Amino acid sequence: MKPLILITNDDGHAAKGLRTLVEVAQEFGDIVVMAPESNVSAKGLSLTTDRPLRAREVVGLFQPAVKLYACDGTPVDCIKLAYEYFCPRTPDLVLSGINHGSNSSINVLYSGTMGAVLEATMLGVKASIGFSLLNHSPNADFSPCVPFVRHIVGTVLEKGLPDNVALNVNIPRLPLEEIKGVRVCRQARACWVDSFEKRTDPRGRDYWWLTGKFQCPEPPHDSDEWALANGYVSVVPIHPDYTCREAVGQISHFAL
Amino acid sequence: MKPLILITNDDGHAAKGLRTLVEVAQEFGDIVVMAPESNVSAKGLSLTTDRPLRAREVVGLFQPAVKLYACDGTPVDCIKLAYEYFCPRTPDLVLSGINHGSNSSINVLYSGTMGAVLEATMLGVKASIGFSLLNHSPNADFSPCVPFVRHIVGTVLEKGLPDNVALNVNIPRLPLEEIKGVRVCRQARACWVDSFEKRTDPRGRDYWWLTGKFQCPEPPHDSDEWALANGYVSVVPIHPDYTCREAVGQISHFAL
Repeated sequence: MKPLILITNDDGHAAKGLRTLVEVAQEFGDIVVMAPESNVSAKGLSLTTDRPLRAREVVGLFQPAVKLYACDGTPVDCIKLAYEYFCPRTPDLVLSGINHGSNSSINVLYSGTMGAVLEATMLGVKASIGFSLLNHSPNADFSPCVPFVRHIVGTVLEKGLPDNVALNVNIPRLPLEEIKGVRVCRQARACWVDSFEKRTDPRGRDYWWLTGKFQCPEPPHDSDEWALANGYVSVVPIHPDYTCREAVGQISHFAL
Repeated sequence: MKPLILITNDDGHAAKGLRTLVEVAQEFGDIVVMAPESNVSAKGLSLTTDRPLRAREVVGLFQPAVKLYACDGTPVDCIKLAYEYFCPRTPDLVLSGINHGSNSSINVLYSGTMGAVLEATMLGVKASIGFSLLNHSPNADFSPCVPFVRHIVGTVLEKGLPDNVALNVNIPRLPLEEIKGVRVCRQARACWVDSFEKRTDPRGRDYWWLTGKFQCPEPPHDSDEWALANGYVSVVPIHPDYTCREAVGQISHFAL
Protein backbone atom coordinates (compact mmCIF):
# COMPACT_ATOMS: atom_id res chain seq x y z
CA MET A 1 0.00 0.00 0.00
CA LYS A 2 1.25 3.49 -0.82
CA PRO A 3 2.13 5.86 2.04
CA LEU A 4 -0.76 8.04 3.20
CA ILE A 5 0.24 11.70 3.25
CA LEU A 6 -1.91 14.20 5.15
CA ILE A 7 -1.38 17.83 4.11
CA THR A 8 -2.41 21.22 5.51
CA ASN A 9 -1.30 24.87 5.47
CA ASP A 10 -2.28 28.19 7.00
CA ASP A 11 -2.77 30.22 3.82
CA GLY A 12 -6.08 28.49 3.05
CA HIS A 13 -7.15 25.57 0.88
CA ALA A 14 -6.92 27.54 -2.40
CA ALA A 15 -3.37 28.84 -1.87
CA LYS A 16 -0.78 28.42 -4.60
CA GLY A 17 1.86 27.01 -2.24
CA LEU A 18 -0.48 24.21 -1.14
CA ARG A 19 -1.08 23.29 -4.78
CA THR A 20 2.66 22.92 -5.41
CA LEU A 21 3.10 20.79 -2.29
CA VAL A 22 0.21 18.48 -3.24
CA GLU A 23 1.58 18.04 -6.78
CA VAL A 24 5.00 16.90 -5.50
CA ALA A 25 3.50 14.76 -2.70
CA GLN A 26 1.37 12.85 -5.23
CA GLU A 27 4.58 11.30 -6.62
CA PHE A 28 5.04 9.58 -3.26
CA GLY A 29 1.67 8.45 -1.94
CA ASP A 30 -2.08 8.79 -1.47
CA ILE A 31 -3.12 12.29 -0.46
CA VAL A 32 -5.67 13.70 2.00
CA VAL A 33 -5.71 17.50 2.38
CA MET A 34 -7.54 19.35 5.13
CA ALA A 35 -6.76 23.05 5.07
CA PRO A 36 -8.39 26.19 6.48
CA GLU A 37 -11.26 27.80 4.57
CA SER A 38 -9.15 30.94 4.16
CA ASN A 39 -5.90 32.53 5.35
CA VAL A 40 -5.38 32.16 9.12
CA SER A 41 -1.87 33.51 9.68
CA ALA A 42 0.07 33.60 12.94
CA LYS A 43 -2.08 31.12 14.84
CA GLY A 44 0.82 29.10 16.29
CA LEU A 45 -0.62 26.02 18.04
CA SER A 46 -3.95 27.76 18.60
CA LEU A 47 -6.97 25.46 19.03
CA THR A 48 -10.65 26.30 18.54
CA THR A 49 -12.39 25.69 21.87
CA ASP A 50 -15.28 28.18 21.99
CA ARG A 51 -17.29 26.82 19.04
CA PRO A 52 -17.46 23.54 17.13
CA LEU A 53 -15.64 22.93 13.85
CA ARG A 54 -17.20 22.42 10.44
CA ALA A 55 -15.55 20.69 7.50
CA ARG A 56 -16.64 20.23 3.88
CA GLU A 57 -15.29 18.40 0.87
CA VAL A 58 -14.05 20.62 -1.96
CA VAL A 59 -14.10 19.23 -5.50
CA GLY A 60 -12.51 20.46 -8.69
CA LEU A 61 -9.37 22.09 -7.28
CA PHE A 62 -7.15 18.99 -7.41
CA GLN A 63 -7.10 15.75 -9.38
CA PRO A 64 -9.97 13.45 -8.33
CA ALA A 65 -7.54 11.08 -6.55
CA VAL A 66 -6.74 13.84 -4.03
CA LYS A 67 -9.28 14.22 -1.24
CA LEU A 68 -9.55 17.91 -0.29
CA TYR A 69 -11.47 19.21 2.73
CA ALA A 70 -11.81 22.80 3.94
CA CYS A 71 -12.25 23.38 7.67
CA ASP A 72 -13.21 26.58 9.52
CA GLY A 73 -10.54 26.11 12.21
CA THR A 74 -6.80 26.63 12.64
CA PRO A 75 -4.10 24.49 11.00
CA VAL A 76 -3.75 22.52 14.26
CA ASP A 77 -7.52 21.93 14.28
CA CYS A 78 -7.22 20.68 10.67
CA ILE A 79 -4.57 18.11 11.54
CA LYS A 80 -6.36 16.88 14.67
CA LEU A 81 -9.72 16.57 12.92
CA ALA A 82 -8.38 15.00 9.71
CA TYR A 83 -6.25 12.53 11.70
CA GLU A 84 -9.22 11.37 13.75
CA TYR A 85 -12.11 11.54 11.24
CA PHE A 86 -11.02 12.07 7.62
CA CYS A 87 -7.99 9.81 7.03
CA PRO A 88 -8.82 6.32 5.69
CA ARG A 89 -5.80 4.96 7.63
CA THR A 90 -3.09 6.33 9.92
CA PRO A 91 -1.03 8.85 7.95
CA ASP A 92 2.61 7.92 7.37
CA LEU A 93 3.64 11.49 6.77
CA VAL A 94 2.20 14.95 7.47
CA LEU A 95 3.20 17.90 5.29
CA SER A 96 2.36 21.58 5.80
CA GLY A 97 2.77 24.51 3.43
CA ILE A 98 4.31 25.52 1.19
CA ASN A 99 3.93 28.67 3.28
CA HIS A 100 3.81 32.04 1.55
CA GLY A 101 6.52 33.66 3.71
CA SER A 102 9.30 32.71 6.09
CA ASN A 103 8.95 30.47 9.14
CA SER A 104 12.64 30.56 10.04
CA SER A 105 14.12 31.62 13.37
CA ILE A 106 11.57 32.59 16.04
CA ASN A 107 8.84 32.91 13.40
CA VAL A 108 8.33 29.16 13.83
CA LEU A 109 6.72 29.87 17.22
CA TYR A 110 3.96 32.07 15.73
CA SER A 111 3.41 29.91 12.68
CA GLY A 112 0.23 27.92 12.20
CA THR A 113 1.93 26.06 9.35
CA MET A 114 4.55 24.83 11.79
CA GLY A 115 2.03 24.42 14.64
CA ALA A 116 0.31 21.80 12.45
CA VAL A 117 3.64 20.00 11.99
CA LEU A 118 4.29 19.85 15.75
CA GLU A 119 0.69 18.73 16.34
CA ALA A 120 1.26 15.78 14.02
CA THR A 121 4.39 14.86 15.97
CA MET A 122 2.45 14.96 19.24
CA LEU A 123 -0.28 12.78 17.72
CA GLY A 124 2.39 10.17 17.04
CA VAL A 125 2.73 10.57 13.26
CA LYS A 126 6.18 9.15 12.43
CA ALA A 127 7.31 12.02 10.22
CA SER A 128 6.13 15.53 9.53
CA ILE A 129 7.62 18.42 7.59
CA GLY A 130 6.74 22.08 7.14
CA PHE A 131 7.87 23.95 4.01
CA SER A 132 8.04 27.74 3.64
CA LEU A 133 9.20 30.01 0.82
CA LEU A 134 10.61 33.42 1.71
CA ASN A 135 8.03 35.20 -0.46
CA HIS A 136 4.72 36.49 0.91
CA SER A 137 3.10 37.13 -2.46
CA PRO A 138 -0.12 35.16 -3.14
CA ASN A 139 1.26 34.66 -6.67
CA ALA A 140 4.83 33.71 -5.60
CA ASP A 141 6.81 31.44 -7.93
CA PHE A 142 7.04 28.10 -6.10
CA SER A 143 8.83 26.25 -8.92
CA PRO A 144 12.31 26.61 -7.33
CA CYS A 145 10.95 24.76 -4.28
CA VAL A 146 10.01 21.63 -6.21
CA PRO A 147 13.38 19.77 -6.36
CA PHE A 148 14.01 20.48 -2.67
CA VAL A 149 10.56 19.34 -1.57
CA ARG A 150 11.07 16.19 -3.66
CA HIS A 151 14.53 15.52 -2.13
CA ILE A 152 13.39 16.05 1.47
CA VAL A 153 10.09 14.15 1.23
CA GLY A 154 11.83 11.28 -0.57
CA THR A 155 14.62 11.13 2.01
CA VAL A 156 12.15 11.20 4.92
CA LEU A 157 10.05 8.40 3.42
CA GLU A 158 13.18 6.32 2.75
CA LYS A 159 15.14 6.90 5.97
CA GLY A 160 12.61 8.24 8.48
CA LEU A 161 13.28 10.84 11.14
CA PRO A 162 14.55 10.54 14.72
CA ASP A 163 11.83 9.75 17.27
CA ASN A 164 9.64 12.78 18.16
CA VAL A 165 11.45 15.01 15.61
CA ALA A 166 9.96 16.95 12.68
CA LEU A 167 11.54 19.25 10.07
CA ASN A 168 11.20 22.99 9.52
CA VAL A 169 12.31 23.69 5.94
CA ASN A 170 12.71 27.25 4.62
CA ILE A 171 13.57 28.04 1.01
CA PRO A 172 15.23 31.32 -0.05
CA ARG A 173 13.57 33.61 -2.56
CA LEU A 174 15.98 32.91 -5.41
CA PRO A 175 15.91 31.42 -8.91
CA LEU A 176 16.70 27.69 -8.74
CA GLU A 177 20.16 28.09 -10.27
CA GLU A 178 21.16 30.54 -7.52
CA ILE A 179 20.22 28.24 -4.62
CA LYS A 180 23.52 26.81 -3.36
CA GLY A 181 22.27 23.71 -1.56
CA VAL A 182 20.62 22.45 1.64
CA ARG A 183 22.00 22.95 5.15
CA VAL A 184 20.93 21.29 8.40
CA CYS A 185 20.77 24.09 11.01
CA ARG A 186 19.50 25.21 14.36
CA GLN A 187 16.95 27.97 14.88
CA ALA A 188 18.53 31.46 15.07
CA ARG A 189 17.78 33.84 17.94
CA ALA A 190 16.12 37.02 16.71
CA CYS A 191 13.52 39.58 17.69
CA TRP A 192 10.71 41.71 16.30
CA VAL A 193 10.86 45.42 17.16
CA ASP A 194 8.42 48.33 16.69
CA SER A 195 5.55 45.90 16.90
CA PHE A 196 2.57 48.20 16.43
CA GLU A 197 1.38 51.20 14.46
CA LYS A 198 -0.90 53.40 16.56
CA ARG A 199 -3.84 55.14 14.89
CA THR A 200 -6.81 57.18 16.11
CA ASP A 201 -10.33 56.53 14.87
CA PRO A 202 -12.77 59.30 13.80
CA ARG A 203 -14.23 59.31 17.32
CA GLY A 204 -10.82 60.00 18.89
CA ARG A 205 -10.18 56.50 20.25
CA ASP A 206 -6.80 54.79 19.78
CA TYR A 207 -6.22 51.46 18.07
CA TRP A 208 -3.10 49.50 17.22
CA TRP A 209 -2.22 47.50 14.07
CA LEU A 210 0.35 44.73 14.39
CA THR A 211 3.39 45.41 12.24
CA GLY A 212 7.08 45.26 13.24
CA LYS A 213 10.57 44.74 11.90
CA PHE A 214 12.46 41.45 12.09
CA GLN A 215 15.99 41.78 13.49
CA CYS A 216 18.65 39.11 13.40
CA PRO A 217 22.07 40.76 13.17
CA GLU A 218 25.07 38.48 12.49
CA PRO A 219 23.35 35.09 12.72
CA PRO A 220 25.77 32.25 13.59
CA HIS A 221 26.99 30.03 10.73
CA ASP A 222 25.10 27.00 12.03
CA SER A 223 21.73 28.84 12.09
CA ASP A 224 18.82 28.93 9.66
CA GLU A 225 19.05 32.71 9.18
CA TRP A 226 22.68 32.41 8.07
CA ALA A 227 21.84 29.61 5.63
CA LEU A 228 18.95 31.54 4.07
CA ALA A 229 20.90 34.81 3.87
CA ASN A 230 23.67 32.92 2.04
CA GLY A 231 21.50 31.19 -0.53
CA TYR A 232 20.87 27.80 1.12
CA VAL A 233 17.68 25.94 1.94
CA SER A 234 17.55 25.57 5.76
CA VAL A 235 16.43 22.34 7.45
CA VAL A 236 15.94 22.57 11.24
CA PRO A 237 15.05 19.44 13.25
CA ILE A 238 12.37 20.51 15.73
CA HIS A 239 10.49 18.83 18.56
CA PRO A 240 7.39 19.75 20.60
CA ASP A 241 9.43 20.64 23.69
CA TYR A 242 10.33 24.07 25.07
CA THR A 243 12.63 22.70 27.79
CA CYS A 244 16.04 24.37 27.83
CA ARG A 245 17.98 21.25 28.80
CA GLU A 246 21.24 22.98 29.76
CA ALA A 247 19.34 25.31 32.12
CA VAL A 248 17.85 22.45 34.19
CA GLY A 249 21.14 22.06 36.09
CA GLN A 250 21.68 25.82 36.35
CA ILE A 251 18.55 26.64 38.34
CA SER A 252 18.61 24.03 41.10
CA HIS A 253 18.33 26.85 43.66
CA PHE A 254 14.59 26.97 42.89
CA ALA A 255 14.10 23.50 44.40
CA LEU A 256 12.54 23.29 47.87
CA MET B 1 13.47 52.47 41.80
CA LYS B 2 11.33 49.39 42.40
CA PRO B 3 11.27 46.65 39.75
CA LEU B 4 8.54 47.08 37.14
CA ILE B 5 6.48 43.91 36.81
CA LEU B 6 4.22 43.44 33.76
CA ILE B 7 1.48 40.83 34.23
CA THR B 8 -0.99 39.07 31.93
CA ASN B 9 -3.00 35.85 31.74
CA ASP B 10 -5.34 34.04 29.36
CA ASP B 11 -8.39 33.65 31.61
CA GLY B 12 -9.27 37.34 31.29
CA HIS B 13 -8.66 40.47 33.35
CA ALA B 14 -11.26 39.61 36.01
CA ALA B 15 -10.01 36.07 36.71
CA LYS B 16 -9.36 34.99 40.29
CA GLY B 17 -5.91 33.58 39.50
CA LEU B 18 -4.75 36.93 38.10
CA ARG B 19 -5.90 38.65 41.29
CA THR B 20 -3.79 36.31 43.44
CA LEU B 21 -0.74 36.83 41.22
CA VAL B 22 -1.08 40.63 41.34
CA GLU B 23 -1.42 40.59 45.14
CA VAL B 24 1.83 38.65 45.59
CA ALA B 25 3.68 40.62 42.90
CA GLN B 26 2.85 43.92 44.65
CA GLU B 27 5.19 42.86 47.47
CA PHE B 28 8.06 43.06 44.98
CA GLY B 29 7.52 46.00 42.63
CA ASP B 30 5.37 48.39 40.64
CA ILE B 31 2.67 46.63 38.65
CA VAL B 32 1.21 47.07 35.16
CA VAL B 33 -1.41 44.52 34.09
CA MET B 34 -2.66 44.09 30.55
CA ALA B 35 -4.93 41.09 30.22
CA PRO B 36 -7.53 39.89 27.71
CA GLU B 37 -11.07 41.26 27.96
CA SER B 38 -12.32 37.71 28.60
CA ASN B 39 -11.17 34.11 28.54
CA VAL B 40 -9.09 33.26 25.45
CA SER B 41 -7.88 29.71 26.11
CA ALA B 42 -5.55 27.64 23.96
CA LYS B 43 -4.20 30.49 21.85
CA GLY B 44 -0.50 29.49 22.11
CA LEU B 45 1.60 32.23 20.54
CA SER B 46 -1.28 33.37 18.36
CA LEU B 47 -1.14 37.00 17.18
CA THR B 48 -4.02 39.19 15.99
CA THR B 49 -3.19 40.23 12.41
CA ASP B 50 -6.57 40.65 10.68
CA ARG B 51 -7.90 43.55 12.76
CA PRO B 52 -6.38 46.24 15.00
CA LEU B 53 -6.25 45.94 18.80
CA ARG B 54 -8.15 48.04 21.30
CA ALA B 55 -7.16 48.54 24.93
CA ARG B 56 -8.90 50.33 27.83
CA GLU B 57 -8.02 51.12 31.42
CA VAL B 58 -10.09 49.28 34.03
CA VAL B 59 -10.52 50.91 37.43
CA GLY B 60 -11.84 49.55 40.71
CA LEU B 61 -10.68 45.93 40.41
CA PHE B 62 -7.25 46.39 42.00
CA GLN B 63 -5.68 48.88 44.40
CA PRO B 64 -5.18 52.30 42.71
CA ALA B 65 -1.40 51.78 42.53
CA VAL B 66 -1.94 48.89 40.10
CA LYS B 67 -2.51 49.95 36.49
CA LEU B 68 -4.94 47.51 34.85
CA TYR B 69 -5.71 47.46 31.13
CA ALA B 70 -8.03 45.11 29.24
CA CYS B 71 -7.18 44.33 25.61
CA ASP B 72 -9.29 42.56 22.97
CA GLY B 73 -6.37 40.43 21.73
CA THR B 74 -4.49 37.31 22.76
CA PRO B 75 -2.08 37.08 25.73
CA VAL B 76 0.86 37.54 23.32
CA ASP B 77 -0.81 40.65 21.88
CA CYS B 78 -1.22 41.94 25.47
CA ILE B 79 2.50 41.56 26.24
CA LYS B 80 3.64 43.09 22.94
CA LEU B 81 1.27 46.06 23.22
CA ALA B 82 1.86 46.73 26.92
CA TYR B 83 5.64 46.46 26.48
CA GLU B 84 5.65 49.00 23.65
CA TYR B 85 2.89 51.44 24.69
CA PHE B 86 1.66 50.97 28.28
CA CYS B 87 4.75 50.40 30.46
CA PRO B 88 6.27 53.57 31.98
CA ARG B 89 9.73 51.93 31.72
CA THR B 90 11.18 48.63 30.49
CA PRO B 91 9.72 45.83 32.62
CA ASP B 92 12.21 43.93 34.79
CA LEU B 93 9.94 40.92 35.07
CA VAL B 94 6.92 39.52 33.21
CA LEU B 95 4.46 37.25 35.01
CA SER B 96 1.54 35.30 33.53
CA GLY B 97 -1.31 33.50 35.28
CA ILE B 98 -2.08 32.15 37.71
CA ASN B 99 -3.72 29.96 35.08
CA HIS B 100 -6.93 28.11 35.95
CA GLY B 101 -5.70 24.67 34.82
CA SER B 102 -2.48 22.84 33.99
CA ASN B 103 0.16 24.01 31.55
CA SER B 104 2.51 21.12 32.22
CA SER B 105 3.94 18.71 29.62
CA ILE B 106 2.88 19.41 26.02
CA ASN B 107 0.05 21.68 27.21
CA VAL B 108 2.65 24.44 27.34
CA LEU B 109 2.60 24.51 23.52
CA TYR B 110 -1.13 25.32 23.31
CA SER B 111 -1.10 27.71 26.25
CA GLY B 112 -1.65 31.45 25.76
CA THR B 113 -0.50 31.97 29.34
CA MET B 114 2.85 30.45 28.44
CA GLY B 115 2.87 32.02 24.96
CA ALA B 116 2.93 35.40 26.71
CA VAL B 117 5.90 34.28 28.81
CA LEU B 118 7.90 33.21 25.74
CA GLU B 119 6.93 36.44 23.95
CA ALA B 120 8.44 38.43 26.83
CA THR B 121 11.65 36.41 26.51
CA MET B 122 11.81 37.13 22.77
CA LEU B 123 11.24 40.84 23.45
CA GLY B 124 14.35 40.77 25.62
CA VAL B 125 12.73 40.97 29.07
CA LYS B 126 15.36 39.59 31.47
CA ALA B 127 13.01 37.27 33.37
CA SER B 128 9.54 35.91 32.84
CA ILE B 129 7.50 33.28 34.64
CA GLY B 130 4.19 31.56 34.02
CA PHE B 131 2.20 30.08 36.92
CA SER B 132 -0.60 27.52 36.60
CA LEU B 133 -2.74 25.71 39.17
CA LEU B 134 -4.05 22.24 38.31
CA ASN B 135 -7.66 23.32 38.88
CA HIS B 136 -9.89 24.60 36.05
CA SER B 137 -12.62 25.99 38.30
CA PRO B 138 -13.26 29.76 37.98
CA ASN B 139 -13.56 29.75 41.78
CA ALA B 140 -10.46 27.60 42.46
CA ASP B 141 -8.65 28.12 45.76
CA PHE B 142 -5.36 29.82 44.84
CA SER B 143 -4.16 30.29 48.45
CA PRO B 144 -1.83 27.23 48.37
CA CYS B 145 -0.02 28.88 45.42
CA VAL B 146 0.94 32.01 47.37
CA PRO B 147 4.10 30.84 49.20
CA PHE B 148 5.44 29.22 46.02
CA VAL B 149 4.78 32.27 43.86
CA ARG B 150 6.50 34.38 46.52
CA HIS B 151 9.53 32.03 46.68
CA ILE B 152 9.97 31.83 42.91
CA VAL B 153 9.41 35.53 42.14
CA GLY B 154 11.72 36.51 44.99
CA THR B 155 14.44 34.12 43.83
CA VAL B 156 14.18 35.30 40.22
CA LEU B 157 14.43 38.98 41.24
CA GLU B 158 17.41 38.21 43.49
CA LYS B 159 19.38 35.80 41.30
CA GLY B 160 18.03 36.28 37.77
CA LEU B 161 17.58 33.56 35.18
CA PRO B 162 19.96 32.16 32.53
CA ASP B 163 20.03 34.18 29.30
CA ASN B 164 16.99 33.58 27.05
CA VAL B 165 15.35 31.27 29.64
CA ALA B 166 11.92 31.62 31.30
CA LEU B 167 10.10 29.43 33.85
CA ASN B 168 6.99 27.29 33.50
CA VAL B 169 5.64 26.70 37.04
CA ASN B 170 2.77 24.30 37.72
CA ILE B 171 1.22 23.82 41.15
CA PRO B 172 -0.64 20.64 42.14
CA ARG B 173 -4.27 20.79 43.28
CA LEU B 174 -3.55 20.03 46.94
CA PRO B 175 -3.93 21.75 50.31
CA LEU B 176 -0.73 23.63 51.20
CA GLU B 177 0.31 21.14 53.89
CA GLU B 178 0.19 18.26 51.38
CA ILE B 179 2.52 19.93 48.84
CA LYS B 180 5.90 18.26 49.30
CA GLY B 181 8.19 20.89 47.78
CA VAL B 182 9.45 22.32 44.48
CA ARG B 183 11.29 20.34 41.79
CA VAL B 184 13.21 21.60 38.76
CA CYS B 185 12.14 19.36 35.85
CA ARG B 186 11.98 18.91 32.12
CA GLN B 187 8.77 18.81 30.10
CA ALA B 188 7.21 15.32 29.91
CA ARG B 189 6.22 13.74 26.61
CA ALA B 190 2.51 13.05 26.43
CA CYS B 191 -0.42 13.05 24.02
CA TRP B 192 -4.08 13.94 23.73
CA VAL B 193 -6.35 11.21 22.32
CA ASP B 194 -10.00 11.12 21.22
CA SER B 195 -9.76 14.77 20.33
CA PHE B 196 -13.30 15.47 19.11
CA GLU B 197 -16.92 14.72 19.83
CA LYS B 198 -18.92 14.50 16.62
CA ARG B 199 -22.52 15.79 16.58
CA THR B 200 -25.16 16.37 13.92
CA ASP B 201 -27.18 19.57 13.72
CA PRO B 202 -30.97 19.68 13.17
CA ARG B 203 -30.35 20.06 9.41
CA GLY B 204 -28.30 16.85 9.27
CA ARG B 205 -24.87 18.46 8.97
CA ASP B 206 -21.94 17.25 11.07
CA TYR B 207 -19.91 19.36 13.46
CA TRP B 208 -17.08 18.57 15.88
CA TRP B 209 -16.42 19.85 19.41
CA LEU B 210 -12.85 19.78 20.68
CA THR B 211 -12.51 17.52 23.72
CA GLY B 212 -9.94 14.77 24.32
CA LYS B 213 -8.13 12.85 27.05
CA PHE B 214 -4.62 13.63 28.25
CA GLN B 215 -2.32 10.60 28.37
CA CYS B 216 1.07 10.44 30.02
CA PRO B 217 1.69 6.93 31.30
CA GLU B 218 4.75 6.41 33.54
CA PRO B 219 6.34 9.85 33.28
CA PRO B 220 10.09 9.83 34.01
CA HIS B 221 11.21 10.98 37.48
CA ASP B 222 12.88 14.12 36.13
CA SER B 223 9.69 15.31 34.36
CA ASP B 224 7.01 17.81 35.34
CA GLU B 225 4.22 15.21 35.15
CA TRP B 226 6.00 12.99 37.70
CA ALA B 227 6.59 15.93 40.05
CA LEU B 228 2.94 17.03 39.90
CA ALA B 229 1.59 13.48 40.27
CA ASN B 230 3.77 13.07 43.36
CA GLY B 231 2.76 16.28 45.13
CA TYR B 232 5.52 18.67 44.05
CA VAL B 233 5.41 22.06 42.36
CA SER B 234 7.15 21.69 38.97
CA VAL B 235 9.54 24.33 37.59
CA VAL B 236 10.63 23.82 33.97
CA PRO B 237 13.21 26.16 32.39
CA ILE B 238 11.94 26.93 28.89
CA HIS B 239 13.23 28.88 25.90
CA PRO B 240 11.68 30.12 22.65
CA ASP B 241 13.43 27.49 20.55
CA TYR B 242 12.00 24.30 19.04
CA THR B 243 15.37 23.03 17.77
CA CYS B 244 16.10 19.44 18.81
CA ARG B 245 19.84 19.94 19.31
CA GLU B 246 20.77 16.25 19.44
CA ALA B 247 18.99 15.64 16.13
CA VAL B 248 21.06 18.23 14.22
CA GLY B 249 23.95 15.75 13.92
CA GLN B 250 21.64 12.81 13.20
CA ILE B 251 20.09 14.15 10.00
CA SER B 252 23.15 15.33 8.05
CA HIS B 253 21.99 13.17 5.11
CA PHE B 254 19.51 15.94 4.25
CA ALA B 255 22.33 18.33 3.36
CA LEU B 256 23.01 18.93 -0.33
